[in-house]
Amino acid sequence: MTQNVYDDPDFFGAYAGLRRSAEGLDGAPEWSRLRAMLPDLGGLRVADLGCGYGWFSRWARAQGASHVLGIDVSERMLARAGAATADRGITYERADLEGIDLAEGAFDLAYSSLVLHYLADLGRLLAQVHRALAPGGRFVFSAEHPVYTAPSLPGWVVDAEGRRTWLLDRYTFEGPRAVEWLGTRVLKHHRTLGTTLTLLVRAGFVVEHVEEFAPTEEQVAADPALAEERERPMFLLIAADRR
Amino acid sequence: MTQNVYDDPDFFGAYAGLRRSAEGLDGAPEWSRLRAMLPDLGGLRVADLGCGYGWFSRWARAQGASHVLGIDVSERMLARAGAATADRGITYERADLEGIDLAEGAFDLAYSSLVLHYLADLGRLLAQVHRALAPGGRFVFSAEHPVYTAPSLPGWVVDAEGRRTWLLDRYTFEGPRAVEWLGTRVLKHHRTLGTTLTLLVRAGFVVEHVEEFAPTEEQVAADPALAEERERPMFLLIAADRR
Repeated sequence: MTQNVYDDPDFFGAYAGLRRSAEGLDGAPEWSRLRAMLPDLGGLRVADLGCGYGWFSRWARAQGASHVLGIDVSERMLARAGAATADRGITYERADLEGIDLAEGAFDLAYSSLVLHYLADLGRLLAQVHRALAPGGRFVFSAEHPVYTAPSLPGWVVDAEGRRTWLLDRYTFEGPRAVEWLGTRVLKHHRTLGTTLTLLVRAGFVVEHVEEFAPTEEQVAADPALAEERERPMFLLIAADRR
Repeated sequence: MTQNVYDDPDFFGAYAGLRRSAEGLDGAPEWSRLRAMLPDLGGLRVADLGCGYGWFSRWARAQGASHVLGIDVSERMLARAGAATADRGITYERADLEGIDLAEGAFDLAYSSLVLHYLADLGRLLAQVHRALAPGGRFVFSAEHPVYTAPSLPGWVVDAEGRRTWLLDRYTFEGPRAVEWLGTRVLKHHRTLGTTLTLLVRAGFVVEHVEEFAPTEEQVAADPALAEERERPMFLLIAADRR
């Protein structure tokens, strides 16, 4: 079973305070890039894997998706997602992505935002997503970048001129990484970018787009704290089509 | 025109002393992984882009390739490659990969080892390689990994326990990087892994295998200096098929 910190009240409270939680999709700096990888959603059946508050599920319906299945491991998340909509074109379901069984050929688009780095067995999920997509279906996802998840002691050194340098080690040593986030010990699973891509290919996907998110000049001007995300990538954004 | 340090006598002398120069393919720790991405070479027409001393060109012929075209920008390299074989199934040609024109559909396999990070315009070369490959053809290449080419001051910090950490910055800032190598100023072109993959897809390739080279336990035991290559990837290995 995947670790579920979201049902811890203290963590949930801290998570609710993040911009991407409070403001939804537009509160996430990488959203516009991820959105650019999506097909026209009109009439599509969509799976939102790790739906959280349901921001994407509701947006997908607003874009014309015929149905959205939002899946999350957290009861609190799903309660909040459910309370935010009366749309019968959205179904929320509690499930652990690590052991999920999705219906064959039931979706045209699968989407997942910043969840896959919590899974120990990415290959199993990719096989499930591939099976669940109809021919021509697309999987669009973001995950923490391996340069961000790798280090034994993640952090920066800052020199006298203010130059920020990311301390990278352990990149090729795949496996669990325990880190502190929002005051809680969170367990992630580090895998190289090569492994993620090779798992996609093996599952039967054609990799169509790979982007290592960097904020724009405008984003950095509006939020100078984002500048460091240009020194090393924090997010990996991928679009892959069912072969 | 791509910088050609190989025709500088001092650089050429230093380069000749490297294990991968003196011992050939088996002197390069990543070779066995790159070899695993190659198809059966029997009867294939092969282009060896940046052939250097011609180690791969000769090996490809020994594996049954029907013809090999070895291309390099360096006269000294080509003189040495030509002197090492009398095989008429190998043709050596001097050309700059940056502006090369390859014959359409003339090859079944294109191969390039540690050259592409010297090119300012990778997209142009990929379009050339795609055009030069027959349907079903494959492109297998290695290049320096962007985590290795990115930093403004590439290097390690070593702590009191001997832990080596790579100093990473400037990852998302693509463009030229001047570094010292073998006593010479060498100009490389840094681009993100996402950019390399997206350029491949746009050129019409299907990405089949992406590997960030890490030496094996056995390699590290035989050559402890390789241990640091596991802390951050130095080489990127890719196989992509003509779509």
